[in-house]
Amino acid sequence: MKTKSHRRTFLKQGALLGGSFLLLGPKAQPSRAAGNETKPTGGAFLPANETLKTIRNLRTIHGNFLDKPLPEPALQTILQASIRAANSSNTQSYSIVVVKDRKKMKEICTYQGSCLLLYCVDFNRLKACAEHLGHPYFPDNITNFVTSSINTALAVQTAAIAARSLGIDYLITNGIHRGDMERVWKILELPTAHCFPLVALVLGYPAEEPTRQKGRLDGAGVIHHEKYHPLTKDEIAEIIRKTDDDRLHLALDWAANRKAEGFDHYLDWFFQAWAAESAKPTEQETQMLRLLKRSGFVELQKA
Amino acid sequence: MKTKSHRRTFLKQGALLGGSFLLLGPKAQPSRAAGNETKPTGGAFLPANETLKTIRNLRTIHGNFLDKPLPEPALQTILQASIRAANSSNTQSYSIVVVKDRKKMKEICTYQGSCLLLYCVDFNRLKACAEHLGHPYFPDNITNFVTSSINTALAVQTAAIAARSLGIDYLITNGIHRGDMERVWKILELPTAHCFPLVALVLGYPAEEPTRQKGRLDGAGVIHHEKYHPLTKDEIAEIIRKTDDDRLHLALDWAANRKAEGFDHYLDWFFQAWAAESAKPTEQETQMLRLLKRSGFVELQKA
Repeated sequence: MKTKSHRRTFLKQGALLGGSFLLLGPKAQPSRAAGNETKPTGGAFLPANETLKTIRNLRTIHGNFLDKPLPEPALQTILQASIRAANSSNTQSYSIVVVKDRKKMKEICTYQGSCLLLYCVDFNRLKACAEHLGHPYFPDNITNFVTSSINTALAVQTAAIAARSLGIDYLITNGIHRGDMERVWKILELPTAHCFPLVALVLGYPAEEPTRQKGRLDGAGVIHHEKYHPLTKDEIAEIIRKTDDDRLHLALDWAANRKAEGFDHYLDWFFQAWAAESAKPTEQETQMLRLLKRSGFVELQKA
Repeated sequence: MKTKSHRRTFLKQGALLGGSFLLLGPKAQPSRAAGNETKPTGGAFLPANETLKTIRNLRTIHGNFLDKPLPEPALQTILQASIRAANSSNTQSYSIVVVKDRKKMKEICTYQGSCLLLYCVDFNRLKACAEHLGHPYFPDNITNFVTSSINTALAVQTAAIAARSLGIDYLITNGIHRGDMERVWKILELPTAHCFPLVALVLGYPAEEPTRQKGRLDGAGVIHHEKYHPLTKDEIAEIIRKTDDDRLHLALDWAANRKAEGFDHYLDWFFQAWAAESAKPTEQETQMLRLLKRSGFVELQKA
């Protein structure tokens, strides 16, 4: 049974970032209330303003989206919001490729929404300007990649929050990093050098309302005070207990049958079935490292 | 003069992500209005709701923050908002270290606010749970690092937007990656393996209101349609023209005297003074690559 579960879930792992959430008002959030049992200081929270309400109700759509276009003003509003995110030295070292072609969307990340925004770490605009002005410019190291992937992800989340404030749903997915990643370069004609597809943000309208919002851990092991706190045995046991508690909605939906499949704890399922590819040390180069080298983002190393 | 400028700005580069923004209502935003000249489709924007207003008015504080504590409910509200960001397989593969000690803040990133949230890519909670349950677990590759740095940055930006909605200012900084990065591990007692400090979010109240909001590029080279569009010579010239246009506020504040310092264009200053360390190919391993290897995040490679 475990093998079957493993295969099935592994295939589904093309999915990725986020869980399936339920849009609930603050009063109707059992998972949040329960999840707050261990909030670090027991302090009260502030009343939610509209922005906090949007954030508290963030949700990800893992099912189908309707085949329905996004109104152009909504798309433009989301894009303009996205680029307001802070970015290092105001370089905006990213590119956003707007994809409305549903066939392309499916090839890129298996999901099809109204629109897909592919966010890439990208230094080609800067390189082109430097060349035009006659300046040498070599953003060819992992430090630049990490800095720009932060820039890029900040812009992604800003777009996601803007979208939800407009009643538009989304999926943030690293599905672009599964399967043959080079397809993304090919389909969107991305530059081979100094450009790396980081995140796809699928925007649209869900075919079905998600049934609930995922919970989050918020105590020991997530939030630390003044210095890093290594987990005690009791704290580890408490995390295992919480992830087993269906009221907290910390488990992935794909783990629903875990007990019937022979897993005592949610995290047994997680490590043995869902994340089984991490059960052994990485024995060969991942395609991501190979493609980061090809992009020029790993100094002193060629693909 | 250029050498002097170079040294000065290079020292200041500890600063980092973001620009200094002015909190303006939608009507009073000259930089936005001007910046929209090239919006990709010329489509109208939607009227701003409260969340969009918060996002449009995002700003970064690069100056001093007041020595004034953050109310505990505000901090808890920001932390709870932060963890609502989507994350891959609901693993929350990050740690947030809350630092209120101003001396530590200064050592970590040179800035001192009311509070600093250090966001780390971190698999130690997951590793501890796996060990407790007797499962082997090796998140030891760059793919996991990149996925988790996305998770982490999404949480950072959610905290930043939540803070601004509460009237609390911030600086998102990769200053932790400048100077001797190992200080961050030492000061906060971070685990050497599978934990990597990614971003510091300084929260607080500015000593002085910033004078203006930074502009953003939003046309060719930033937003692409259906496929990647390499810049034409005209588009490159247009970007150079825009970055020279003071009304668009695309330039960093430190470039204010660039003309007197002998730079024709803002981007001449940028490439020759600000980003001068990128004028040559990277000839030795950056400390980030070395420390990523030490953390176990670069497969098949030891520090």
